[in-house]
Amino acid sequence: MTHLCNDPREFAATALCGFCDVYSSIVKPTSGGVLRATATRPGKVALVIGGGSGHFPAFAGYVGTGLADAAVAGDIFASPSARLVHDVCVRAHRGGGILLGFGNYAGDVLNFGAAATRLRAEGIEARVLAVTDDIASAKKGDESRRRGIAGDVTVFKIAGAAAEHGMPLDEVERIARLANARTRSFGIAFAGCTLPGAGAPLFSVPVGRIAVGLGVHGEPGIGEIAMIQASELAELFVSRLLEEAPESPGNRVAAILNGLGGTKYEELFVLWDSVAEALRRRGLGVVAPLVGEYITSLDMKGCSLTLTWLDAELESLWMAPCCSASMRIGDTGPATPGTAEPEEVEKQAGWPRGSSESNRAGCAIARGFECLAAAMREAEAELGCIDAQAGDGDHGMGMARGSAAAAEAANDAAIAGAGAASVLAAGGDAWADRAGGTSGALWGLGLRSASAALDDNSAVTAKQVATAATRAFEDVMTLGGAKPGDKTLLDALLPFVETLSAAVDAGVPLYTAWEQATNAAESGAENTRNLVPRIGRARPLAERSKGHRDAGAVSFALAARTILQVLGESR
Amino acid sequence: MTHLCNDPREFAATALCGFCDVYSSIVKPTSGGVLRATATRPGKVALVIGGGSGHFPAFAGYVGTGLADAAVAGDIFASPSARLVHDVCVRAHRGGGILLGFGNYAGDVLNFGAAATRLRAEGIEARVLAVTDDIASAKKGDESRRRGIAGDVTVFKIAGAAAEHGMPLDEVERIARLANARTRSFGIAFAGCTLPGAGAPLFSVPVGRIAVGLGVHGEPGIGEIAMIQASELAELFVSRLLEEAPESPGNRVAAILNGLGGTKYEELFVLWDSVAEALRRRGLGVVAPLVGEYITSLDMKGCSLTLTWLDAELESLWMAPCCSASMRIGDTGPATPGTAEPEEVEKQAGWPRGSSESNRAGCAIARGFECLAAAMREAEAELGCIDAQAGDGDHGMGMARGSAAAAEAANDAAIAGAGAASVLAAGGDAWADRAGGTSGALWGLGLRSASAALDDNSAVTAKQVATAATRAFEDVMTLGGAKPGDKTLLDALLPFVETLSAAVDAGVPLYTAWEQATNAAESGAENTRNLVPRIGRARPLAERSKGHRDAGAVSFALAARTILQVLGESR
Repeated sequence: MTHLCNDPREFAATALCGFCDVYSSIVKPTSGGVLRATATRPGKVALVIGGGSGHFPAFAGYVGTGLADAAVAGDIFASPSARLVHDVCVRAHRGGGILLGFGNYAGDVLNFGAAATRLRAEGIEARVLAVTDDIASAKKGDESRRRGIAGDVTVFKIAGAAAEHGMPLDEVERIARLANARTRSFGIAFAGCTLPGAGAPLFSVPVGRIAVGLGVHGEPGIGEIAMIQASELAELFVSRLLEEAPESPGNRVAAILNGLGGTKYEELFVLWDSVAEALRRRGLGVVAPLVGEYITSLDMKGCSLTLTWLDAELESLWMAPCCSASMRIGDTGPATPGTAEPEEVEKQAGWPRGSSESNRAGCAIARGFECLAAAMREAEAELGCIDAQAGDGDHGMGMARGSAAAAEAANDAAIAGAGAASVLAAGGDAWADRAGGTSGALWGLGLRSASAALDDNSAVTAKQVATAATRAFEDVMTLGGAKPGDKTLLDALLPFVETLSAAVDAGVPLYTAWEQATNAAESGAENTRNLVPRIGRARPLAERSKGHRDAGAVSFALAARTILQVLGESR
Repeated sequence: MTHLCNDPREFAATALCGFCDVYSSIVKPTSGGVLRATATRPGKVALVIGGGSGHFPAFAGYVGTGLADAAVAGDIFASPSARLVHDVCVRAHRGGGILLGFGNYAGDVLNFGAAATRLRAEGIEARVLAVTDDIASAKKGDESRRRGIAGDVTVFKIAGAAAEHGMPLDEVERIARLANARTRSFGIAFAGCTLPGAGAPLFSVPVGRIAVGLGVHGEPGIGEIAMIQASELAELFVSRLLEEAPESPGNRVAAILNGLGGTKYEELFVLWDSVAEALRRRGLGVVAPLVGEYITSLDMKGCSLTLTWLDAELESLWMAPCCSASMRIGDTGPATPGTAEPEEVEKQAGWPRGSSESNRAGCAIARGFECLAAAMREAEAELGCIDAQAGDGDHGMGMARGSAAAAEAANDAAIAGAGAASVLAAGGDAWADRAGGTSGALWGLGLRSASAALDDNSAVTAKQVATAATRAFEDVMTLGGAKPGDKTLLDALLPFVETLSAAVDAGVPLYTAWEQATNAAESGAENTRNLVPRIGRARPLAERSKGHRDAGAVSFALAARTILQVLGESR
């Protein structure tokens, strides 16, 4: 549980400020993360890493000479927005291209991927590497679906050394992929973690039991075993990882025995005593082992063992000097402070003025965001509970945060006289920046796409609304990588868009068309539900048991219903 | 709570093994602690630090170039024995004398003090420095009675830098005393810590409350306040410490915001954000702040703030390069591995054979230790509970561990044919080595003193027993620094010794004299008790409420009663 806190919503950002103050000779804060405070050679490949917060020392603790050039930090357990990733990359770029490194989670894949696409469109060569070391998260043969846990650290360390050595982007990417392909981790937990401001942990493990194969975002494990002694756990770790050894493994390994936050250093050293012995007994030579907290999950109790099978090249990069806040190896030589890059003006000074008709529509859109924010705030806890059944329980928080930020930005734009398209775009950008996570990225993207169907010169027509919704659906489906039926937002969005378009095409007025579409969205969201059906709407059991209710589909249906009320006000 | 454990009794020793394996380029294990693994200039003053275990990275994490030369490690929260401290010092000595640094706790003061006395007797110049930074543990004006908490780290860092610079022992001692005199800490806790193998924490803090002014051994705080926000806590820390600023403070401070083990780095950074602001607002310049875990108390939740007011000399020593496992500043240049010092033969190869009469007495003494060990094992939990009311709750564990080790050593000696004096001395030495803490040191000392009244050539007379008991009492009182009536072991030992001597002088046979003395010891132990009196022994309320029961007095009375049974067997 978190005791030291001011405003829980500002927890991650305030912690990053405090961190940058302590390590000001190594890092400096930037909007959305941290950059090296030291001068870096022009032309060097930049390694930009990141993900959600709550994993200290991941990721800001690994920025420094011989390691990463920058880290992007989302909110607690929430991916940073594509715009933040992009902006941090632009500031970290030294002309040699960028490798973006992150753990293989949907939100990070989406946001870092979208940022890389945008960087390439702007002429900056950018590659992405999703770390996939957690053997418990998908079967052998399906390695690309595995999550990234403490293997992030060996992969980023090795890639950072390659970049510092002056290797070109192709080589740095090759090395990073090789390191990832030769890295395996396995983790266990004794107790779940508690989000700042929350009263209870995200999951709990029964007394006398150990959860096996958990993630680092409060996801429970894939199984449970009875409590065992440290020496037995060492055998479990080592034997499971050795079953997964890569091809041509050799007999040299880098090792990280990682504490998840609530397991003490003394305990980790006790376990390491047995792990080291178990590795030696199998003829493996351990190179510069790390034992301690390297990627945590707030106060989760538990640990993981990571092995990276080294060849000669990987070993020399693993041992290469580095100097970051949380990892220091050898001697990186004297550092000179970097020049202060003038941060681009972040806040848009003003919006283009729209016509008075379009501004009136913009004001209505801002009013829509305001009602949406109120509805999401009210539904936050319930959406969190629904999400916790299948995900990490942060959906409600993300929707509340995103819609609140959108409401504020849209209101500012509307007051400044902006037209409908600009108000909607301002809301979408703010949503993506503040909500974090997959759903935040998708909502931001969808609103941005929708805004392109409007303009700043005229009132909004029903036809435009239908087109905007269709565009949003198309882009969300393309970049999100899911299909209707996958139990996502799309299960509500697709019937909404289809119904809305058909009704508008048939000449139905906007309010009525939106009402029909909202009903369709609610049905779609319910189709992912395995609950007692509403009274009077009994469905066959087969349909009812299709699966759990998806938080993203539910929140979209709620948003549609809220906007219907706003449309009703102005009739 | 500790989850990763094999045998809880071996927890601290195993953790130290694992630590030394991970940091083998910096430290190497030695009996009782760790030494630098790197070569150290002959003639340099050696800084030897230490105390109980359970405080990682204190103390082994601070051994390395520019910091300590060695760390002595007792068991969890228990001081290492004087013999271990002495032996580690001998191995760390480079001809320049030794400064022994430790927190101001009774057990450490006793053991490090006794070790220094022995070193000086052997011709090695040794000084002691007990750190006294905790402002909550004694009032202003009574600074020498204050405990040492995270201020250990600034004082040892500065003293270590002075020694590395080649300053002579007088200067290193002066600098260390100056640093201690200018260092203040204040701590709070949200929850107590749990000893390895134990099922419940040593103390707990009610939900929504904060314990103020606690120690680092599971001692509860001196008071309680309602839960406050991080920014308010920062104000509390800074304002309390500034009230205690030393004379001529200046405006430059070293700062450590120390997590006690169960409080996460992110939380500490959130708090630091406010602490840094509070210090700046008061015009103080913070020099190279440390925020993280620097001296923990197992998994205790909480933190402390330490300030050391710097003058120019202290500031340059605080910033000087160092390279230890857990603190690295600047660049200490290339290190060469140290030569392997041949460890002295630790285990005595054999005992001098005694006469058959004396060996028979030695066997009886060994039998006494065996019964004592059984009794202490049985009473361990109860003695722990009694101790927890006033101390850190480790008395039962220490007595059980010490008496078990004594029984084994005494048995070995008796089987090898040793006489009474040697068997008793062997038991006493083993007790001191394994029990740790104040009581372990005092029991070891007392048994050693007692053994000097016996010999290896004859049977033991009642007169010798009385003399032995008297000598033990005298030495325990002198070195322990307490007086009868202070609610210590002496409250039972003094009436025991007086009664025994008087009875023996009057010609009473040993069994009966011991019985009378045991009764007196039990009365003495009861006099420190504030409990419902035994049936039939009603005492006036005034006497009953004199105070709590002292665990040391109770365990001595129990020991006396146990030995009486052994004497009865052989009648």
